[in-house]
Amino acid sequence: MASSEGNKLWGGRFVGNADPILEKFNASISYDQRLWEVDIKGSKAYVKALQKAGLVTQNEMEQILTGLDKVFDEWSKGEFKIKPGDEDIHTANERRLKEFIGDPAGKLHTGRSRNDQVATDARLWLRDAITTLKELALQLISTMVERAAVEIEILCPGYTHMQRAQPIRWSHWILSHAAALSRDVERLEDIRKRVNVMPLGRCIYNTEISLNFDRISINSMDATGQRDFVAEFLFWGSMCLTHLSKMAEDLILYSTKEFSFITLTDAYSTGSSLMPQKKNADSLELIRSKAGRVFGRCAGFLMTLKGLPSTYNKDLQEDKEAMFDTYDTVHAVLQVATGVISTLKVNQPAMEGALSPDMLATDLAYYLVRKGMPFREAHSCAGKAVYIAESKNIHLSKLTVEDLQTVSPLFDKDVSSVWDYTKSVEQYSAPGGTARSSVTAQIEHFRTWLQAQKQ
Amino acid sequence: MASSEGNKLWGGRFVGNADPILEKFNASISYDQRLWEVDIKGSKAYVKALQKAGLVTQNEMEQILTGLDKVFDEWSKGEFKIKPGDEDIHTANERRLKEFIGDPAGKLHTGRSRNDQVATDARLWLRDAITTLKELALQLISTMVERAAVEIEILCPGYTHMQRAQPIRWSHWILSHAAALSRDVERLEDIRKRVNVMPLGRCIYNTEISLNFDRISINSMDATGQRDFVAEFLFWGSMCLTHLSKMAEDLILYSTKEFSFITLTDAYSTGSSLMPQKKNADSLELIRSKAGRVFGRCAGFLMTLKGLPSTYNKDLQEDKEAMFDTYDTVHAVLQVATGVISTLKVNQPAMEGALSPDMLATDLAYYLVRKGMPFREAHSCAGKAVYIAESKNIHLSKLTVEDLQTVSPLFDKDVSSVWDYTKSVEQYSAPGGTARSSVTAQIEHFRTWLQAQKQ
Amino acid sequence: MASSEGNKLWGGRFVGNADPILEKFNASISYDQRLWEVDIKGSKAYVKALQKAGLVTQNEMEQILTGLDKVFDEWSKGEFKIKPGDEDIHTANERRLKEFIGDPAGKLHTGRSRNDQVATDARLWLRDAITTLKELALQLISTMVERAAVEIEILCPGYTHMQRAQPIRWSHWILSHAAALSRDVERLEDIRKRVNVMPLGRCIYNTEISLNFDRISINSMDATGQRDFVAEFLFWGSMCLTHLSKMAEDLILYSTKEFSFITLTDAYSTGSSLMPQKKNADSLELIRSKAGRVFGRCAGFLMTLKGLPSTYNKDLQEDKEAMFDTYDTVHAVLQVATGVISTLKVNQPAMEGALSPDMLATDLAYYLVRKGMPFREAHSCAGKAVYIAESKNIHLSKLTVEDLQTVSPLFDKDVSSVWDYTKSVEQYSAPGGTARSSVTAQIEHFRTWLQAQKQ
Amino acid sequence: MASSEGNKLWGGRFVGNADPILEKFNASISYDQRLWEVDIKGSKAYVKALQKAGLVTQNEMEQILTGLDKVFDEWSKGEFKIKPGDEDIHTANERRLKEFIGDPAGKLHTGRSRNDQVATDARLWLRDAITTLKELALQLISTMVERAAVEIEILCPGYTHMQRAQPIRWSHWILSHAAALSRDVERLEDIRKRVNVMPLGRCIYNTEISLNFDRISINSMDATGQRDFVAEFLFWGSMCLTHLSKMAEDLILYSTKEFSFITLTDAYSTGSSLMPQKKNADSLELIRSKAGRVFGRCAGFLMTLKGLPSTYNKDLQEDKEAMFDTYDTVHAVLQVATGVISTLKVNQPAMEGALSPDMLATDLAYYLVRKGMPFREAHSCAGKAVYIAESKNIHLSKLTVEDLQTVSPLFDKDVSSVWDYTKSVEQYSAPGGTARSSVTAQIEHFRTWLQAQKQ
Repeated sequence: MASSEGNKLWGGRFVGNADPILEKFNASISYDQRLWEVDIKGSKAYVKALQKAGLVTQNEMEQILTGLDKVFDEWSKGEFKIKPGDEDIHTANERRLKEFIGDPAGKLHTGRSRNDQVATDARLWLRDAITTLKELALQLISTMVERAAVEIEILCPGYTHMQRAQPIRWSHWILSHAAALSRDVERLEDIRKRVNVMPLGRCIYNTEISLNFDRISINSMDATGQRDFVAEFLFWGSMCLTHLSKMAEDLILYSTKEFSFITLTDAYSTGSSLMPQKKNADSLELIRSKAGRVFGRCAGFLMTLKGLPSTYNKDLQEDKEAMFDTYDTVHAVLQVATGVISTLKVNQPAMEGALSPDMLATDLAYYLVRKGMPFREAHSCAGKAVYIAESKNIHLSKLTVEDLQTVSPLFDKDVSSVWDYTKSVEQYSAPGGTARSSVTAQIEHFRTWLQAQKQ
Repeated sequence: MASSEGNKLWGGRFVGNADPILEKFNASISYDQRLWEVDIKGSKAYVKALQKAGLVTQNEMEQILTGLDKVFDEWSKGEFKIKPGDEDIHTANERRLKEFIGDPAGKLHTGRSRNDQVATDARLWLRDAITTLKELALQLISTMVERAAVEIEILCPGYTHMQRAQPIRWSHWILSHAAALSRDVERLEDIRKRVNVMPLGRCIYNTEISLNFDRISINSMDATGQRDFVAEFLFWGSMCLTHLSKMAEDLILYSTKEFSFITLTDAYSTGSSLMPQKKNADSLELIRSKAGRVFGRCAGFLMTLKGLPSTYNKDLQEDKEAMFDTYDTVHAVLQVATGVISTLKVNQPAMEGALSPDMLATDLAYYLVRKGMPFREAHSCAGKAVYIAESKNIHLSKLTVEDLQTVSPLFDKDVSSVWDYTKSVEQYSAPGGTARSSVTAQIEHFRTWLQAQKQ
Repeated sequence: MASSEGNKLWGGRFVGNADPILEKFNASISYDQRLWEVDIKGSKAYVKALQKAGLVTQNEMEQILTGLDKVFDEWSKGEFKIKPGDEDIHTANERRLKEFIGDPAGKLHTGRSRNDQVATDARLWLRDAITTLKELALQLISTMVERAAVEIEILCPGYTHMQRAQPIRWSHWILSHAAALSRDVERLEDIRKRVNVMPLGRCIYNTEISLNFDRISINSMDATGQRDFVAEFLFWGSMCLTHLSKMAEDLILYSTKEFSFITLTDAYSTGSSLMPQKKNADSLELIRSKAGRVFGRCAGFLMTLKGLPSTYNKDLQEDKEAMFDTYDTVHAVLQVATGVISTLKVNQPAMEGALSPDMLATDLAYYLVRKGMPFREAHSCAGKAVYIAESKNIHLSKLTVEDLQTVSPLFDKDVSSVWDYTKSVEQYSAPGGTARSSVTAQIEHFRTWLQAQKQ
Repeated sequence: MASSEGNKLWGGRFVGNADPILEKFNASISYDQRLWEVDIKGSKAYVKALQKAGLVTQNEMEQILTGLDKVFDEWSKGEFKIKPGDEDIHTANERRLKEFIGDPAGKLHTGRSRNDQVATDARLWLRDAITTLKELALQLISTMVERAAVEIEILCPGYTHMQRAQPIRWSHWILSHAAALSRDVERLEDIRKRVNVMPLGRCIYNTEISLNFDRISINSMDATGQRDFVAEFLFWGSMCLTHLSKMAEDLILYSTKEFSFITLTDAYSTGSSLMPQKKNADSLELIRSKAGRVFGRCAGFLMTLKGLPSTYNKDLQEDKEAMFDTYDTVHAVLQVATGVISTLKVNQPAMEGALSPDMLATDLAYYLVRKGMPFREAHSCAGKAVYIAESKNIHLSKLTVEDLQTVSPLFDKDVSSVWDYTKSVEQYSAPGGTARSSVTAQIEHFRTWLQAQKQ
């Protein structure tokens, strides 16, 4: 059939029956051995289904189950030896099973392709992973909420565009990040619905396989050729870590000398090899950096999927390292973030010292609104007052009533009531606001929600 | 305060009070004018809330509502004139309102920041967009399902690794793509839950705003500073178009001369400017390409979000072009895909001519399994039979019983029953399988599901 | 050939001879009309080559050239009317040419495919774009360098990990960003080499086409099917804007109330719609955000390219919007950055006020090194001194010689010479250092380099 | 300073002096031990510079050099033991050095920060990596070129849009991919220029360090805080593998049953666990998939860089895993691709059997052009001829002169000369064309270029 002969004509690498570089490239055992437990679990369920379908005898099933238990045992004790030729965890487990029980091992794969098995294992593994990550996320949220409850009296500047905007409660800041994370938990549950689907849709025999899946795949070609659940999980990790990159950025700022709002404990900061006086917020910088790493996994996997034809193609093998790395990274970040949040020290005098009367300029405008001026005009008047205070190089609150009356005759002595940070914070008593009652309501909301999530 | 004076020392661009390049860069009116309708809708609901809170009088409210209706009217007639200074849709609408009703217009923004307004408008717009895209996706799925129902008798090769694997029903292929899209529809509903949340959480006055949102934001800082719903939508588009890139890739392959399984109608293919005989599947190539485009929007926006500090930063302005472009692209792709699927012509003889006896080698193995041989051994025997047939340069089905018996004594005359493509397809009668009954069940599943979705 | 009939069976969208949505989707004229000038330029050169090859007569060539000039004229006057059917700029120009000169227009495309023409136009356009962007980058660098020269005496803290590290010259900070941008300019030149290659490699006749390309493509299939130069350019933009996102981040920090190192002029900052006192660094936030936008274009286009088969596929049409948007974005960002750098005001007292004696702890260690102590030990001693000062709540420089001697007997009265920020900065006199001489050398380096680039 | 006390109030994870999860997260030794050799090399050069500057004595230098040689020795023999506390390769080597030589080890880090050292090591490592990858790329190109030389007589269809377009030489296809790779080699040289720059710019003493760098950094802050060279390398890998994904896609297509143009040797394909007859092009699918993986690294790293403030931040630690993984992946892919190209078998009859007369329709048009018809009109006439042949269900070449004359009176008996695939291929004799002479010129071009590269 071939018109060309031999390799030497064009002088490529020497290649015998197998290219060792390709073999290494092709092999996934170095990372997919993490699936050992779900692989055995899946096989145990599968052989039971085969027995019900009459495809293996009771006796064969028992041999296989016993053999699989032995394989399980070796893995849990760290005694399983991977051998050359064990290209993936499925091959390795099957090879070992055969060593234990001989020929009946060969019956285990009746009607099950490697592709079915890979997809099933990945789903079982990710299902557990989701449970673990959810727990860690809840622990972080819980830490935030309880800290917010304790420190509700501390005021600090709220920023927009990194500029001081209006006074807020420090707890309000904490809870803003808890809110983001609570969406991540909800999204994780959305993904779980699509992970917990049995892909072994094209079994040759019509039997039930009992692995606690919620649903069975609709279509066998789709079942083995799709990795939506992996892609969704990678994006989930990207969003979650983007949220934490935002929190980390805030805290890095707050821990600069210039802000001095917080201090990390030594456990979460490190010194410099050159500069003896330095204390760096390495833990926060690592958190911030990981959003990129995980999104890179998502981007890479989506690009690998793009334009692939239907059903299984070897390209899909990229799914597992991306999934594992994302899991490990989010797993570590959530815990480090919990550690940071639970141990950082708040410098209340610095936070409150950063409040200044010009942050009450909006309140000054509302003072005029309450006296009947349209907001846009009031905003403009308050702006003029700010300008006068700047020109005089005094605080806004130090303007006299006469000064203010040059801006608007509506100003009167009662304007002095505006210069109170707590009062300012308290006026936002709508849901989600900064008033004590609103923040307390947020805390209650989260406590109830956490309780519901843990059930 | 400043220690340095004047610009000319370092010779930058001349800059007066405003840099026209920055102004253009900063302005979003060129694209966010698409929000005109939801912006007015939002303002109408807001002024009603202000009136209930006693912040505007009944009369002022009525003036504002009437004025907003006039603005609405101009937009719907295409008569609204954008003026210099209208940097975004919110400014433009407010400016026009003021032209219509004068001072009372200034009361509309009491207690509402631009950032609140932007977030509210984006959510209202996306809520409608999701409804539209869902309808288009359902129309595509419906087209697929009905086509699958009509063409259920057509057999063709199923491929894995782009190699002929086992015979399948053509309908089974169609439905594999419908299954992927049905997940996209489910995901869209998950997103809708998080889009349909009122961000105006920090209103100064505790009033209800009636915009049919499901929930209100938990925390005001989170509310104005998060764009999760946009990021999720961009990723949703990426996944949906990655699915369609897979379908397009299959169809491009099937429309090559070499496969010749399908022919696009002229409406969906184009000629070549150089080669008179050519007919290119441009429509499918466009579909395939757009997964990249939309994912680029997602990647870009996530990168923009990474490491931003809390609350609103101008960086968030990148959300809208990404959101609009993703919507427009998915909107077009879904319709073009529906057009392609509903009009392509199937070349049944070519599909069935591509079936060959070696695709039944698995069935040959199962023949041995049914006679008691473990699957792994049977797989190996079938492999040997394939090899003998290749050596003899004949079809696998042309091997004599004697030939086969050199591989295994279990082969007998009844092996002839294996060489039947329909029978092969029919044995996969489990859910999601290729048997007529299984494919019919898939079709019924989708019909029921579509019905439920449309309600 | 087709086994299936009609569209109505599966109820898709009605489709006649052409699907209007596909037509719109397919058409590129809305954006590729930007190529009008290079398209005409390319055609003029091409027809001259055809004439030399004897494929058009002298007379035909002259008609075509005259006709093309008329088309050029219409575009430059803004009078060219795009008509339905003008799906891209090439078709539009050819259609108009034919209206002007009739049949000879049809000879222009001898031996030139649309794909050749598209690739040629894109290269000609990008060649000019590179020239423009280089000029803008040089202007920005030049502004930085001249500002650095003027403000060389200003000291400020150098940061690592956003923590105060050692004193530096403000000019050193400016030049660190100029250094990054100078690499971007060098990279742009590397790209130009690969842009400036003639793709019209497979002309049927062996003629020269005179468009000032440096090289001709090696292989015709590669020539029309590759878009490396676009991908490289998109990545170039991503790197360049990532550099500017870093500079913007620094400046946003420096313009916070807490740092107060710089103030943007009003031309580069905006107020708040809600808070009268605020001044936001919108210009810098926009700069920071655009790195994401442009990288999204790069990511999207790479994903589109991934796994495409050889030669032209319609997917490549994604190249142009990505290229134009990247150009426009970088074009604006470079100018806005130049405006910001040339107009920002430096608050020298705040910068110098942020220097504190603990930033000289490394100098304290070097003091010991000069007295013979190994650096690691000296680092540790300086650390102890910092700790003692913190315990006593005094500045490091206020420790007495006796205090210091409890740490190491090597300390003596001459330690007082350490507490001098200028001296500290001056000791780094190696190339690239912070000493006056080193910074001046950097400035000279850049001036020479700029001179060389401009030639 | 802190207003809050203790961790237990908000019930976070217990944390002592160090968080073990953070320590693991923070440590880079698990991957950066790959830098052991360049780290020692760098330190040896550095201590020599210190001695010249009078900072260490001749004797201390000799002790350090001898000690470093011992550390080197342990690593090369695989005997180096990493201990707890060795958080990165620099710490590990320094710790071991101190164990060997005691106190003088502490002098090695005079005037060198960890950040300087990390940047230097990364550059030294990548410089070597570039050399290796270049060699592998050249070997692949060389294999392609020599194969193209041997198989120059084989014709096959050239495709655009995956549709048969015009006949080409098979060698022309091979060389189109060699052309893309040759650009990758050129780009690698561009990157090398920017890698081979000494970052140790801010040495306290003005000495030369001899590590064969081409240049020294311009600015010390830029030097330690930039990772452009890593980002560029990651993008380089993405482009290179995108090229190979294109080649792999072509070859996967060509190895389908439907095309049957090539057969991979067993060394580069694998069987199916379920289907005995299958032979999958796994090697090519792996190649195709890796473009995504590597681009994911690039995307992730760029996202990590976005918006970081100046100088070193811990986030930069993401550089190394990305760099190593990209290197390893490209390293393997280039070799596997070389193996595939050097061993695949070409099925010449199938390739030539896929040529059909309609692929000469363009030649039919040129026949008319040579008789004086404008190309556009000739294109249209050839199209009509194609249509007539299709209607008659005969090959285009079987149309009689009478048939053709119904399309244009210019057709005559000599039209029969058109129906010759070799002649068709030969007419493209311009540079980069398909004529024997053009392809031979391409081969000569590459041979010369390869020679020049290897020097």
